[in-house]
Amino acid sequence: MKLSYEQERRLVAGILRAANFPGEDAEIISRVITHSDFTGVPSHGLSRLTRYLRQVQQGALNPRPRFEILRDDQAVLVVDGDNGSGILSVNRAYELALAKARQFGLGLATGRRNANIGCGSYYAWQAVEDDMICLLCCNTYAFAAPYGGAERLLGTNPLIVGIPTGDAHPLVLDISTTKVAMGKIQAAQREGQSIPPDWASDYEGRPTTDPALAYALSPIAQHKGYGLAVIAEALSTLLSGAAFGTDVGLFSRLEPENTGFFLLLIDPSRFLPLEEFKRSADRYVAMLKGSRKAPEVDEIFLPGELERRRYEELMVSGISVSPALEEELCQLARQLGLDFAGEGLSALLCRLEKDAASLCSQDNS
Amino acid sequence: MKLSYEQERRLVAGILRAANFPGEDAEIISRVITHSDFTGVPSHGLSRLTRYLRQVQQGALNPRPRFEILRDDQAVLVVDGDNGSGILSVNRAYELALAKARQFGLGLATGRRNANIGCGSYYAWQAVEDDMICLLCCNTYAFAAPYGGAERLLGTNPLIVGIPTGDAHPLVLDISTTKVAMGKIQAAQREGQSIPPDWASDYEGRPTTDPALAYALSPIAQHKGYGLAVIAEALSTLLSGAAFGTDVGLFSRLEPENTGFFLLLIDPSRFLPLEEFKRSADRYVAMLKGSRKAPEVDEIFLPGELERRRYEELMVSGISVSPALEEELCQLARQLGLDFAGEGLSALLCRLEKDAASLCSQDNS
Repeated sequence: MKLSYEQERRLVAGILRAANFPGEDAEIISRVITHSDFTGVPSHGLSRLTRYLRQVQQGALNPRPRFEILRDDQAVLVVDGDNGSGILSVNRAYELALAKARQFGLGLATGRRNANIGCGSYYAWQAVEDDMICLLCCNTYAFAAPYGGAERLLGTNPLIVGIPTGDAHPLVLDISTTKVAMGKIQAAQREGQSIPPDWASDYEGRPTTDPALAYALSPIAQHKGYGLAVIAEALSTLLSGAAFGTDVGLFSRLEPENTGFFLLLIDPSRFLPLEEFKRSADRYVAMLKGSRKAPEVDEIFLPGELERRRYEELMVSGISVSPALEEELCQLARQLGLDFAGEGLSALLCRLEKDAASLCSQDNS
Repeated sequence: MKLSYEQERRLVAGILRAANFPGEDAEIISRVITHSDFTGVPSHGLSRLTRYLRQVQQGALNPRPRFEILRDDQAVLVVDGDNGSGILSVNRAYELALAKARQFGLGLATGRRNANIGCGSYYAWQAVEDDMICLLCCNTYAFAAPYGGAERLLGTNPLIVGIPTGDAHPLVLDISTTKVAMGKIQAAQREGQSIPPDWASDYEGRPTTDPALAYALSPIAQHKGYGLAVIAEALSTLLSGAAFGTDVGLFSRLEPENTGFFLLLIDPSRFLPLEEFKRSADRYVAMLKGSRKAPEVDEIFLPGELERRRYEELMVSGISVSPALEEELCQLARQLGLDFAGEGLSALLCRLEKDAASLCSQDNS
C-alpha cells in the first residue's frame, strides 16, 4: 500500500479527530507525523500513531490539552503542555518564540508537561523556512545509562539544529545522543541478530551483543555523548520544571510523560544583513560539498541533506505502508468508531474523505 | 619545578606585558591560561604561551587590539577582536552578553577576527558563578575531515556549556567535536606509538594507525560528530562574519586566524525562581551521582566534575612544570628583554615580583 503526502496527512488527522483531538490540533499533529515518514524517519511516523492513541486511552496523553503560557518575560517564555502531545506544545511555542526572535533577535521557549514532540527536523525545517536559526532539544523516556553507570537515567535526548542558507541545502542536524534507539535493538532481537557492543549494556552495566540482554542504551562518543545527553536533559527540564531521569513517565507505567523541551530561535538578520549571511552559508556549504573525498565515497553529505533528498523522492513516489501496519491502523480506526465499508487503508481513506467533504459542505452552508 | 596558582598567573602576565600586551589584558589572559593548567588541561596552559607569542612576532596576533562592538541590537551583539587574543574578545563579549541576559533573559554575542579563545571551561565556570547558563562554541584551525571526506575542513570546534546548581557540582561540559586534538597524535609519534584507527585519516582519507601518516582528525561519533562540528563552525562564523574551513589562518601560514565564536548566556531566574531551579539541578545531579554503577566503576562523574576536582587538588599542590617547558619559558622571557639573574623560573618569578613591587611603589608614590 502506498500513500501520498496528502493521503497520509488526511489519514492521520482523521484518526486523531476520531480519537477526540480537536480538528486544528489533529491537522498540526498530522503534519509532523507525515513529515517524519516523508523524510525517511518512520520511527516517528504513522507507526507511532497506535502508541500515541494507546497513551490517550490510558489517560497518559490528554487529547484536549489546555496549552498555557506560564511565563512571558522579554525574550523568555515558559509553557505548559497540560500533558498533551508535545507536537502541539512545540508548534505553539515555536510561534511564540518566533515573535520574540523578531522582536529581540532571540527567543527562547521552554516547555513542561509534554508527551513526545515527534520528528525534530520538522521544527528545524520550519525555522529555516522562516529564515531563523533553531536550536531545539528535549528529554525522553530514560532508556540510557550515564557513562560508567548501569541504570537507565537518560533519554535518547535529541539535539536539533536548523541553519538557513541561500540557494544551498539548509543545514539541519537531528541526532539522538544515544548510539541507537531502543527500537533498533528490538528489531535485531526479532530478526535473531546480535548487536554491536557499543549499542547497549546489560542490567549489570556490561556491554552486550545480545539484544535480549540489552537493558540500557549507550550514549554516543563515550563521556562526550553522555555529557551532551545530560546537558540536553538539564536544559529541557530545569528551565521548564519538567520531569527528568526516572521521573519521566514511562509508557509502560501509564503515566503522563511530563518531558520538557528547550526551543531557541535566533534571527540572523539582526547580526548582519540576511543576504550576506545566506551568501556565506552557501559558500560554507559549497566548501564542504566540493571537498576531496575519501576512497569509495561518492559524495559528502551535509547534516540533513539525506532527509531532504528522501523527502523529494518520497513526495513523488509516496511512502510504503506494510500490510502489518495497514492492518494495525484499520483496527485502530474501527476501535475509534470509524466504520468503513471494504478492506484496508484505501477504504478508510475513502470514508475519511467523505467526512471531510461533508465537513466542507457544512462549512459552506 | 612547581608553581602555585598565583605564581603562574604572575609569570604569564609578566611575560605578556614584556611582549607588549597592555597590563589589564595581560591580567585577563593570565587568568584563563592559569585556569587551564589548574584544571588539568595543559594544552591551553603555559605550554601554549610560546605559540601565542610566536604569533605576535609574526604579525598574526595583535597584542594591542582595538576591540569593537559592531552590532548592539536588543539581545544581540556582534564584536570584532581586531586579530587579538580570542581570550580577550570572549571575556569582553561575556560582560556585554551578561548585561543583555540580565535585561532580556538571554544575550547572544558572536565574535570575529579572533585568535584562540583559550580554555573553554573558564567561561563556563564564570557563568555558573554568575548564576547564568552559558552555551559557547567556536571554530579553530581546520584540522578535521568531514564525514566521508579526506580534506581538512573543520576545526576541533569545541562545545562548551555551563549550568549552575545549588550545593552540587555545577554541570560544565567542554568537549571538542573531534576524537582527539592534533597534539595527542604528535605525542604518539614522538613516543613511537601507534594510534587507534578512529583518531585520524591519512592524506587519502583512509583510517590510519600510524601517527606519521595521520593527516586529518576524525570527528567523534561518525556522522553525528561531523554534524555537531559543522553546526559549531556555522554558528561561530556565519553570525559574526569570521573565517571558516580552509579560510581560517593557519599557524604555519603566519596569518591572523580570524576565527569566530558564539556565546549565549541565559538567566535561569527569568524562567522560574532561581532557588527552585537550583534545587531541581541539585536533585538531578544527585540522581546521576547516586545511580547504580557498571562493574569496576568506582564513581559516576558529572560533566566537568573531574576538572573541578583536579582544580581543588592543584590549588593545594601547585602544578608541575617540566624542565623543557621551564627552559622554553626562560628563553622566551630573555628574548622579550626580561633579564634576570640566576637560572630557571624561580629567578624569573623573582624578577617579575620585583617589577610588580616597583610598579606598586610607583602607584603608591
